[in-house]
Amino acid sequence: LDIPVGYRRLIFLMAATAVLLGTAVIGFMALEDLSFFDSLWMTIISVMTIGYGDMYPVTDEGRKFALFLVPLGAGIVTYALGTSASYLIEKQLSEKVWEK
Amino acid sequence: LDIPVGYRRLIFLMAATAVLLGTAVIGFMALEDLSFFDSLWMTIISVMTIGYGDMYPVTDEGRKFALFLVPLGAGIVTYALGTSASYLIEKQLSEKVWEK
Amino acid sequence: LDIPVGYRRLIFLMAATAVLLGTAVIGFMALEDLSFFDSLWMTIISVMTIGYGDMYPVTDEGRKFALFLVPLGAGIVTYALGTSASYLIEKQLSEKVWEK
Amino acid sequence: LDIPVGYRRLIFLMAATAVLLGTAVIGFMALEDLSFFDSLWMTIISVMTIGYGDMYPVTDEGRKFALFLVPLGAGIVTYALGTSASYLIEKQLSEKVWEK
Ligand SMILES: [K+]
Ligand SMILES: [K+]
Repeated sequence: LDIPVGYRRLIFLMAATAVLLGTAVIGFMALEDLSFFDSLWMTIISVMTIGYGDMYPVTDEGRKFALFLVPLGAGIVTYALGTSASYLIEKQLSEKVWEK
Repeated sequence: LDIPVGYRRLIFLMAATAVLLGTAVIGFMALEDLSFFDSLWMTIISVMTIGYGDMYPVTDEGRKFALFLVPLGAGIVTYALGTSASYLIEKQLSEKVWEK
Repeated sequence: LDIPVGYRRLIFLMAATAVLLGTAVIGFMALEDLSFFDSLWMTIISVMTIGYGDMYPVTDEGRKFALFLVPLGAGIVTYALGTSASYLIEKQLSEKVWEK
Repeated sequence: LDIPVGYRRLIFLMAATAVLLGTAVIGFMALEDLSFFDSLWMTIISVMTIGYGDMYPVTDEGRKFALFLVPLGAGIVTYALGTSASYLIEKQLSEKVWEK
């Protein structure tokens, strides 16, 4: 395949994000006995480093799992959001919108 | 128009920030039944990723809305603050203040 | 004066950080009726975007003040910590420690 | 020794992270009278700037210690996670995975 490097990285970044978030959501559902949506909420609020305090891991297993998964997830999500914002502002939309 | 690329990006960044924050504030006012100022407070505390825990979305609709809007808002606001701080320190004020 | 640009920026960054944090601490002492140490604690926990939830602005005036000062402080402090960590790792200590 | 600069920085970064986190964990164990695991949890939740609000320093000594250690730890950990994510996506894994 002859896919440009920018697209390869984007695909890899999206795949890494999906794997990490999926693992976290399924892990917290099992370890913390949460519904899918509650586990998704706790995962996103954790990896975004918001930590409202309405939900957090309370079991020993859930906290040990979080000590690995949350920093990894936060690293990837912060990187993905940062590069997306940078790309959006510096490369693409600003030029396209301006040309109209 | 012949506006320099730096200004175009600044205009686009400010517009994107305003649209995202405005959408979040109006959305939380409707979905979470909040006053304008409470919704603004919850939005800023969320997109800054502070999450004091005094206010957070509690309805299912508000939490689903937050799962989309807060990461987008956090990405843009973090980028805007980071580039502003970088520009402030590296390019402009330090030189101007020094020359006085 | 013939001070290298790197030092000028460092001085400016430290001055900007001190002015913003000082303004925040004094402002919260007055608006939220806090002791110096409690105001310093709330300011640092806020601009670091930790937001433990033990202390946050509760008056209307304090919250309006926070909406301006906390994003500015967070932008400068995050930038200062990021550039310090980068400089520490990439330029200075790693080489000096290694040469011993 | 003839170790490439990239590895030197990685070793230095890991050592600095270990020293800062170790100091924080031991310090909070002593000052806040916490078990090892509770202190590790509070340290990671603090330096990741999540701040769930389930645990935070409550003694004067613990809060003063946190005012120094948490910003330093957050700076190093954020830098380490950011450069790791960047390296993972831009340099290494994406190419290796792709070549298979
Ligand atoms: K945060
Ligand atoms: K928080």
